[in-house]
Amino acid sequence: MQVGTHLLHQPAGGKGKLLGGLPGTERGKVVVLGAGAAGGNSAALAAAGGANVVVFDKRPDRLAQMMALGSNVTALYPYEEYVARELRNADLVVGAVLVPSARAPRVVTAAMVKDMEPGSVLADISIDQGGCFETSKPTTWKEPTYVVDGVTHFAVTNMPGAVPQTSSQAISAAILPYVQRLASGPAWRDHEPLTGGINVDGGKVVHPALEGVV
Amino acid sequence: MQVGTHLLHQPAGGKGKLLGGLPGTERGKVVVLGAGAAGGNSAALAAAGGANVVVFDKRPDRLAQMMALGSNVTALYPYEEYVARELRNADLVVGAVLVPSARAPRVVTAAMVKDMEPGSVLADISIDQGGCFETSKPTTWKEPTYVVDGVTHFAVTNMPGAVPQTSSQAISAAILPYVQRLASGPAWRDHEPLTGGINVDGGKVVHPALEGVV
Amino acid sequence: MQVGTHLLHQPAGGKGKLLGGLPGTERGKVVVLGAGAAGGNSAALAAAGGANVVVFDKRPDRLAQMMALGSNVTALYPYEEYVARELRNADLVVGAVLVPSARAPRVVTAAMVKDMEPGSVLADISIDQGGCFETSKPTTWKEPTYVVDGVTHFAVTNMPGAVPQTSSQAISAAILPYVQRLASGPAWRDHEPLTGGINVDGGKVVHPALEGVV
Amino acid sequence: MQVGTHLLHQPAGGKGKLLGGLPGTERGKVVVLGAGAAGGNSAALAAAGGANVVVFDKRPDRLAQMMALGSNVTALYPYEEYVARELRNADLVVGAVLVPSARAPRVVTAAMVKDMEPGSVLADISIDQGGCFETSKPTTWKEPTYVVDGVTHFAVTNMPGAVPQTSSQAISAAILPYVQRLASGPAWRDHEPLTGGINVDGGKVVHPALEGVV
Amino acid sequence: MQVGTHLLHQPAGGKGKLLGGLPGTERGKVVVLGAGAAGGNSAALAAAGGANVVVFDKRPDRLAQMMALGSNVTALYPYEEYVARELRNADLVVGAVLVPSARAPRVVTAAMVKDMEPGSVLADISIDQGGCFETSKPTTWKEPTYVVDGVTHFAVTNMPGAVPQTSSQAISAAILPYVQRLASGPAWRDHEPLTGGINVDGGKVVHPALEGVV
Amino acid sequence: MQVGTHLLHQPAGGKGKLLGGLPGTERGKVVVLGAGAAGGNSAALAAAGGANVVVFDKRPDRLAQMMALGSNVTALYPYEEYVARELRNADLVVGAVLVPSARAPRVVTAAMVKDMEPGSVLADISIDQGGCFETSKPTTWKEPTYVVDGVTHFAVTNMPGAVPQTSSQAISAAILPYVQRLASGPAWRDHEPLTGGINVDGGKVVHPALEGVV
Repeated sequence: MQVGTHLLHQPAGGKGKLLGGLPGTERGKVVVLGAGAAGGNSAALAAAGGANVVVFDKRPDRLAQMMALGSNVTALYPYEEYVARELRNADLVVGAVLVPSARAPRVVTAAMVKDMEPGSVLADISIDQGGCFETSKPTTWKEPTYVVDGVTHFAVTNMPGAVPQTSSQAISAAILPYVQRLASGPAWRDHEPLTGGINVDGGKVVHPALEGVV
Repeated sequence: MQVGTHLLHQPAGGKGKLLGGLPGTERGKVVVLGAGAAGGNSAALAAAGGANVVVFDKRPDRLAQMMALGSNVTALYPYEEYVARELRNADLVVGAVLVPSARAPRVVTAAMVKDMEPGSVLADISIDQGGCFETSKPTTWKEPTYVVDGVTHFAVTNMPGAVPQTSSQAISAAILPYVQRLASGPAWRDHEPLTGGINVDGGKVVHPALEGVV
Repeated sequence: MQVGTHLLHQPAGGKGKLLGGLPGTERGKVVVLGAGAAGGNSAALAAAGGANVVVFDKRPDRLAQMMALGSNVTALYPYEEYVARELRNADLVVGAVLVPSARAPRVVTAAMVKDMEPGSVLADISIDQGGCFETSKPTTWKEPTYVVDGVTHFAVTNMPGAVPQTSSQAISAAILPYVQRLASGPAWRDHEPLTGGINVDGGKVVHPALEGVV
Repeated sequence: MQVGTHLLHQPAGGKGKLLGGLPGTERGKVVVLGAGAAGGNSAALAAAGGANVVVFDKRPDRLAQMMALGSNVTALYPYEEYVARELRNADLVVGAVLVPSARAPRVVTAAMVKDMEPGSVLADISIDQGGCFETSKPTTWKEPTYVVDGVTHFAVTNMPGAVPQTSSQAISAAILPYVQRLASGPAWRDHEPLTGGINVDGGKVVHPALEGVV
Repeated sequence: MQVGTHLLHQPAGGKGKLLGGLPGTERGKVVVLGAGAAGGNSAALAAAGGANVVVFDKRPDRLAQMMALGSNVTALYPYEEYVARELRNADLVVGAVLVPSARAPRVVTAAMVKDMEPGSVLADISIDQGGCFETSKPTTWKEPTYVVDGVTHFAVTNMPGAVPQTSSQAISAAILPYVQRLASGPAWRDHEPLTGGINVDGGKVVHPALEGVV
Repeated sequence: MQVGTHLLHQPAGGKGKLLGGLPGTERGKVVVLGAGAAGGNSAALAAAGGANVVVFDKRPDRLAQMMALGSNVTALYPYEEYVARELRNADLVVGAVLVPSARAPRVVTAAMVKDMEPGSVLADISIDQGGCFETSKPTTWKEPTYVVDGVTHFAVTNMPGAVPQTSSQAISAAILPYVQRLASGPAWRDHEPLTGGINVDGGKVVHPALEGVV
């Protein structure tokens, strides 16, 4: 969201539009594809910032959670015609469609991108798994963006790398309980969150999501 | 707002749309013309109910106040093309344009009404002063609505009459301080809020807004 | 909630009271019986609209969720004397007590209804399963209400029928993931949410809730 | 509010009731008399803490401001019968009725106090100007409370003295701009907020509120 | 929180600081150790009251829940150096570290207490299980506090005893569904929440947490 | 705020810290100098984004308004020692001290800047009137930043130029009522907001703020 907001500024090549708007102006429109952890968080930030937000997801429980973020959030099922319609006047689109152990599905076609207003911004968070826009290709922080049909594309694969201080502190807090358990002896074998994460055990592939892959 | 919400229900002849929406659906759209006490209150209720709200007013301070009601409120200057554009896909329009001591200006033309979706609802709160839709004519609680070009019109002149218990208690609390002052002797002549409300004094019209009228 | 609000208006036969109140007036009081999906949603709308809300439910987790809706919500265990006490000065009562595969229990007796103020409104959402007021009988949108002891009763069995546009869009988004899975071949047999919903399988009643019923 | 909350605890002699309530319990009820700076602040704290709040004031604009504090706040005109009714089941009453340059009016009679539940708490913030309960008499932090008809009375005249660190920092920030102006030479004579505060000038009483008093 | 707030007042021996602050002053700082039910609730109250709140917990999901309480809440992993740093300028510390069937770990050392500002307050909610401050010892409502190194300690073992009316109503609502099931015959044996709570069955210790203890 | 957030990212040369934080991390700290329109708006955005915010201003009413923005906002009087102390661990500092018709006072000395952490960001909004940091010098959107003592300085004079679409729409809505009045004939001479803005009238300097300047 923060990168997307910046890219919408005119000196950065964008439309020159403030997402939260001002009295007397329209609010910006943000479309988020996929309401998982990353997408949901983007939608929450966009909603808090005062934009008009549309989130797409297939899971009814996620739609309800997204709608509860605020009255400026609309949560819809990703029928192709709905996605195409909402993209047409979007200012910022966040692609966050992730399918575990699979390539991200390309829910936005090149034709839909062509239909968008020039100066709009696409940020593809699912680029690690192939990206969810047909026009996506991986970039780095050195040259983070490129333009297709007048639309700025942002697809940096290592996004947390922009805020290493916060990222490191957060990931440490998140994994330390597991590290301590691993370091405390063989008892960790009784702890499902850990055993459920084993990919290879005694030389054999044991994780169900990897069956047939390796 | 409550009457408008009811009129949108299909058994009442409306579109059959819930203003606050549900997960997986669009939210309803409410347009409010005029951000004075009545219009501002309507906008606040619509915003609290989860609708997508657009408010028009010419005063910059009112635009700022309206925008602060919530992230689902957009506050715009009433350029004619803006009003026409926003009305096109509105579900409920509240007309609350009041000009002191003058006929309400007709900011919505019959052509704009014709352009609206069938089953939409227009509620004209400024009907006491002539109404702000070209298609408005006064109605009563006995037969509160009529239909023009598929659009339900509500223009009851005595709106507070629907909730007499609340209206009476509120108006009593509001006027009692003034009544007590009036009843306490000639000292009320020093109280500007009261003296400023005098229309005729010693047989002469003294209120500036009435000059040239009577 | 929207229907109930409308029925409280005096032209609709109600008390003439605004649920959210005004400066200088009391707020209206809404009692909700049962904090499942429908009841919880009613309580949330009533709370957002500014009414004084009391919700009854037996489940501690639901009581906590209801209380978290806002500071104007009180969540209580449905002791008979508590229900009777809270109904006495209620303006709107929403009955939403549902027990899976069973008749709704009649938590409100005819005596409690007699004790209420004239012009109050009872809306029985559990009417599909028999209703939770002793005085309830099914109605339709054609003639949605009737009066018992001065209290307006609303008990339309097909409530979503009032907002068909929103209802259809919401239900489509909710069931489409299951339909797609069903249509994708026999693999749906591995999907618990679907298999758990089977009532009859291979000519035999298999759903536990139907045992002894059929 | 903080003192009042503490006094409601049973070890402090109170009812043993939590103002914000818990799931499955009633919320406490706080009545505030007077919506000036002190009373309004008390009401805001009580509302934020989740209590059921009733505020009395004669000024329509203050009633509107109080009501806007939250949906658990009711704002009423202080008709004597209203005050008596609301006090009957109040847990905590804050008296904050101030009239500039005059004794605080005694809006709560001894009879109303007798009618309250034992263990309830009265806090009289207007005690500096005589107090607004008929049963009030000034106390100090050494022995801050006394009991009348089972109702705990708190009427410490130097209330900010309980939090000297915060009080001193706040008052310094508030008066420093005026001190700087006074210290900068005779130009302060042009600054209305300062000249308006002069009581005696050139040996003569000049403040209108003191006319006839001295 | 309410007790802690009271103890910070100067007449009660505290620093004389208002946790929520005033315009022109710093806000008070509250540190909560442990984000279980009791700790989480304390943090929520402190956040609602406007203090600057830091919560420590090892569980990532709890950290996320705490952070969501409000923008004035920081949620951290309890690295020893972090705890020591945050305690140094804390005004109120709530100890709520509970480990099921085990003594509460002493996360705050006597050295850390010595490092705190005089007049600060420590409230040990985990005192029933041994307390989580090295300097804690059980107290009663009769003499609830004692001072170590200038820091007020509060460690009453029966805290709900201060608000018996609310406590009793809440606990009744919480346990009644279980009591009714127990009283309805041997069928309660099928209800996991009840069977999971059995400590001794047929003369044998059966609860896993008691293995090796008895 | 949006520019400042971007500059804190490591690829942009900043600390690599997320202002709103994450579960398990500290929140970023934003200091705002001056609570006028621009500074107050920055503080509001920073507060909404979840940062820890400190605002300095001399006016008591502005301090109260800033504090009301949220519980993560502290509002203080700009004693020099307070400003120096708060800057020391700030991540982003917004300078918005404006004095009508005068050079902005330099409230932040070069020594204070030297004392800040490397990678922090200073944004000087008052640069049009000379800037309020001793180390400020005007920049443009072409090369918007420079570094002093490891601290990134941003001081673009035409800030609204980054979002021309929103800026233009907002300014049009704000000035149109005045333009219409000016265009409607000599009657605008009765409208104080317009007459009060006249600098030169009939060849004479008439605006009080320009006396002695020209």
